[in-house]
Amino acid sequence: MKIVSQIIQLKTKGYTDIIDITFEVQSIIDSVEFKTGSVLISAIGSTTGITTVEYEPGLVKHDISEMLDKLAPYGVPYEHNKTWGDDNGAAHLRSTLIGTSQTIPFDNGKLILGTWQQIIFMDFDTRPRSREIVVQVTGE
Amino acid sequence: MKIVSQIIQLKTKGYTDIIDITFEVQSIIDSVEFKTGSVLISAIGSTTGITTVEYEPGLVKHDISEMLDKLAPYGVPYEHNKTWGDDNGAAHLRSTLIGTSQTIPFDNGKLILGTWQQIIFMDFDTRPRSREIVVQVTGE
Amino acid sequence: MKIVSQIIQLKTKGYTDIIDITFEVQSIIDSVEFKTGSVLISAIGSTTGITTVEYEPGLVKHDISEMLDKLAPYGVPYEHNKTWGDDNGAAHLRSTLIGTSQTIPFDNGKLILGTWQQIIFMDFDTRPRSREIVVQVTGE
Repeated sequence: MKIVSQIIQLKTKGYTDIIDITFEVQSIIDSVEFKTGSVLISAIGSTTGITTVEYEPGLVKHDISEMLDKLAPYGVPYEHNKTWGDDNGAAHLRSTLIGTSQTIPFDNGKLILGTWQQIIFMDFDTRPRSREIVVQVTGE
Repeated sequence: MKIVSQIIQLKTKGYTDIIDITFEVQSIIDSVEFKTGSVLISAIGSTTGITTVEYEPGLVKHDISEMLDKLAPYGVPYEHNKTWGDDNGAAHLRSTLIGTSQTIPFDNGKLILGTWQQIIFMDFDTRPRSREIVVQVTGE
Repeated sequence: MKIVSQIIQLKTKGYTDIIDITFEVQSIIDSVEFKTGSVLISAIGSTTGITTVEYEPGLVKHDISEMLDKLAPYGVPYEHNKTWGDDNGAAHLRSTLIGTSQTIPFDNGKLILGTWQQIIFMDFDTRPRSREIVVQVTGE
């Protein structure tokens, strides 16, 4: 068994910008040529998220944001904002809730996901950001 | 260290059907005879979830559904439903929120969980499904 | 590649008590002297959570609790409470939602996290508890 890590770099728009990274993750598995194992996808930053979804515009551009608005709306006061004179309390809360990492198995060199299931990076922050995601492949 | 993967197959009823899979996961660890390591449990499908809970009817048949109804109720319009003529937007949102995989350590060949803590598979879809869950054991 | 596990022991106050365990996790990685790999942090117990956050008082003492109060408030009736004569239904729901484990990569012996991103243990139970968290380091 071996471990190999690579970094995905992204430019994001913030405000729950959701980006499909399945192709990039699969490409990294392809490049290391492991047959079986798992891939840890871990976003760097406390206003990010990693999870899976069916990547289609209805969910990604509308429904997910509407759900998260019920819990942690943008543009309202948070104690976090008072601490730092910041305006991104909602972004931190969404990150804590969704989580910043997920591990997905692969076999025969291919990610094991449902037909309509994609790996997504979420940027919850309130401004455009340059982001890094660690993709760590463990396998043989 | 070695990696061994097996599949759990389930028939589910949908609508946040919650199934205790702790025994099946432990059985797979038993069968591979590793002493120490971790087990990645990853459900296949964008309307599924994997997490842990105290598996008792109050939580599993009532309270969890009531909580998720506040965020992503069934039977209301979603943009997802318009995209595909589908009716399972709520199921996708619940899956994105809960997550489709979790990793649990084991030692002396036994899962390390609390006394009242079970591993559960959740089927959020709006119809009965046949499901597969990857159980990947890494250890020695 | 090798696996080494250690236990973090904590005394908590309950009611969504949030404790920064980043230093303890990093210390365990330091002690095993692995250069690259991942660390699985898994809390034992069905009223606990593991996730990451910017650990500052506004979020940790106020905003996170306020968000979770919308979903699973303390002090209201749950079916779980009727099952056991218990009063901690809210604690179980929060644990199922947040999840009890997370995996974080490390390189050059250092956790890969954002500048403002800490690993937290959450105790959702309705009384003080003594808790154990498994920290399993896999690497080389």
